[in-house]
Amino acid sequence: MLNFSEQPHKRKNLLTGEYILVSPHRSKRPWQGQVEDLAPDDRPQYDPKCYLCPGNARADGTINPDYKDSFVFVNDFSALLEDSSLDTFNEDNLLQAEAERGICKVISFSPRHDLTLPQMSPTEIKAVVDLWQREFRELAEHDWIKYIQIFENKGSIMGCSNPHPHGQIWAQSSLPVEIQKESEQQAIYFQKNSRTLLQDYLALELKKDERIIVNNEHFVALVPFWAAWPYETMIISKRAVPSILEFTEAEKEDLAKTLQELTIRYDNIFKTSFPYSAGMHQAPVNSGDQPEWHWHMHFYPPLLRSATVKKFMVGYEMLANPQRDITPEQAADTLKQQATVHYKAQ
Amino acid sequence: MLNFSEQPHKRKNLLTGEYILVSPHRSKRPWQGQVEDLAPDDRPQYDPKCYLCPGNARADGTINPDYKDSFVFVNDFSALLEDSSLDTFNEDNLLQAEAERGICKVISFSPRHDLTLPQMSPTEIKAVVDLWQREFRELAEHDWIKYIQIFENKGSIMGCSNPHPHGQIWAQSSLPVEIQKESEQQAIYFQKNSRTLLQDYLALELKKDERIIVNNEHFVALVPFWAAWPYETMIISKRAVPSILEFTEAEKEDLAKTLQELTIRYDNIFKTSFPYSAGMHQAPVNSGDQPEWHWHMHFYPPLLRSATVKKFMVGYEMLANPQRDITPEQAADTLKQQATVHYKAQ
Ligand SMILES: O=P(O)(O)O[C@H]1O[C@H](CO)[C@@H](O)[C@H](O)[C@H]1O
Ligand SMILES: O=P(O)(O)O[C@H]1O[C@H](CO)[C@@H](O)[C@H](O)[C@H]1O
Repeated sequence: MLNFSEQPHKRKNLLTGEYILVSPHRSKRPWQGQVEDLAPDDRPQYDPKCYLCPGNARADGTINPDYKDSFVFVNDFSALLEDSSLDTFNEDNLLQAEAERGICKVISFSPRHDLTLPQMSPTEIKAVVDLWQREFRELAEHDWIKYIQIFENKGSIMGCSNPHPHGQIWAQSSLPVEIQKESEQQAIYFQKNSRTLLQDYLALELKKDERIIVNNEHFVALVPFWAAWPYETMIISKRAVPSILEFTEAEKEDLAKTLQELTIRYDNIFKTSFPYSAGMHQAPVNSGDQPEWHWHMHFYPPLLRSATVKKFMVGYEMLANPQRDITPEQAADTLKQQATVHYKAQ
Repeated sequence: MLNFSEQPHKRKNLLTGEYILVSPHRSKRPWQGQVEDLAPDDRPQYDPKCYLCPGNARADGTINPDYKDSFVFVNDFSALLEDSSLDTFNEDNLLQAEAERGICKVISFSPRHDLTLPQMSPTEIKAVVDLWQREFRELAEHDWIKYIQIFENKGSIMGCSNPHPHGQIWAQSSLPVEIQKESEQQAIYFQKNSRTLLQDYLALELKKDERIIVNNEHFVALVPFWAAWPYETMIISKRAVPSILEFTEAEKEDLAKTLQELTIRYDNIFKTSFPYSAGMHQAPVNSGDQPEWHWHMHFYPPLLRSATVKKFMVGYEMLANPQRDITPEQAADTLKQQATVHYKAQ
């Protein structure tokens, strides 16, 4: 019998088809490595120098409106451009390149500079979910757009350059690597079983009830069996739908509640604003029916031991294989023990 | 015509089969995000508290010998264990896991606590190469070991927990994800062309001479066309051999010189001890003949703009696709302009 909490082992990520390495005994090792600075956590409600606050000027001189909930605009430093022509390049099949077209947007989650998702109310978060849905619909109207990535980098440790609560959307003309992998694995499963992979996976997780963190009428947040990051989680919709487009009002309300509860639990672990990169994976758009695609959202948080010591995905992980120290079950236990009231509001 | 230095585009990584996204125009964006602390750079030649210095005690009480060049031992906090049994776990094909057996070693590159590879002489680096070759041979004698990852995490920003110059070797019972990808791509190419992929790629790069950084009798260091990290490079052996086992004395001397020159150029870019994760990719062992495998070594350095501002591979990169801001050609130009004498020795 494989002993998950003692023996080094590999687990298969069903969505990518790739394995991750788990070294449970290794969390005992001492740490003398890098310790992160804690970003000061006493921000004003309004910062005159912030390019996301209402009424302030952005890089190109545009003045933000006096918005009341969330607010969206095209990124002033977009990684993808809309007017790119679709040229290709090939030299002896050894140097291969293709132009990529896209639109990058920034979404401010709140007019308040001092908040983060876990400090917002379900109603306020619901306004963000509404905007995500609206943006997804409008971006998908460009027939050349094939994939829309909605995501958030939270915390300076995750490359976030402005603490004002915000996320991004990158919409593009081809499928990114991770989406190709998930499309392939989900399609293989659906062809064989006529149900989505995540439908069956979710049913098994609910039955076992070992890694479930949040469970409401329409959504579940859990630590996936194959989590690579220490406190990695995934939100899965109970209804098997390909994208946020399908969500009803009731579902959007539940998604907002799920996001609030999950991020409050995160903040409570180390009594700190818990950094992460998070984002939805959804069916490619303008690409025909894809009933195998099941909406879900990944959370990849880097912290491991404390508010200032993270997991480094470096040498072995970059060159060979993602590796983790604590088990997904230990992480799930810690998340389950947290209060659902934010530590700052207690 | 695709304009590499103006247009967002994707480039194909021939070794993994996966694309990376290049956003050349994006390097102009301002940065108000995280700035790294510079680790103090005035270390003593000997540190009584360092577990890698000669004569000092390690975590388990063992006393290090009074070694004169490099020195190897089994990691006191190994991620893989030698005595693990090879159990498997499967629940409805939805939860899949396998035990993994392995040996993790630490290699001190020098008795001197204050040095790094670029500050060592080719003769001193050659002693490290000799030890890598010897360790590879000895580890491969265990018939259950299938892959041997030799690597170095340099700098606290890369999760290195001790500044004493050192690297690691993780040897294991199955093939890691990145090695599976490279095995597959190299095998497809070899079957079709009867030459290794890197042989033909190297010939084309030498002909074009746009991304070549070091070129001596036996090795080339270049910025690969598909580099993802800002100053990513790759060392390729001119002779198509599957592993370090095949290297002659003359080749090992040239590899030492290549490592010295490349890492000196790195340190000179920002006049700082340039952090990176680096490691060799080699043919799996105890797995039969693999003439498609061509020895090479990757360098993944995180710095982008200065000694303290790195590239963050976060939200979009983790969820969708690796993305870079400067082009590989711009990075190659910067590396080519550097002096081959270390800035501290100038
Ligand atoms: O083995 P070390 O130096 O303690 O640890 C370092 O390298 C390992 C292998 O890349 C990583 O798993 C760790 O996260 C990192 O801190
Ligand atoms: O777009 P931002 O917030 O300026 O930048 C941040 O997110 C991007 C998308 O994940 C990354 O490419 C950048 O490295 C990171 O700093």
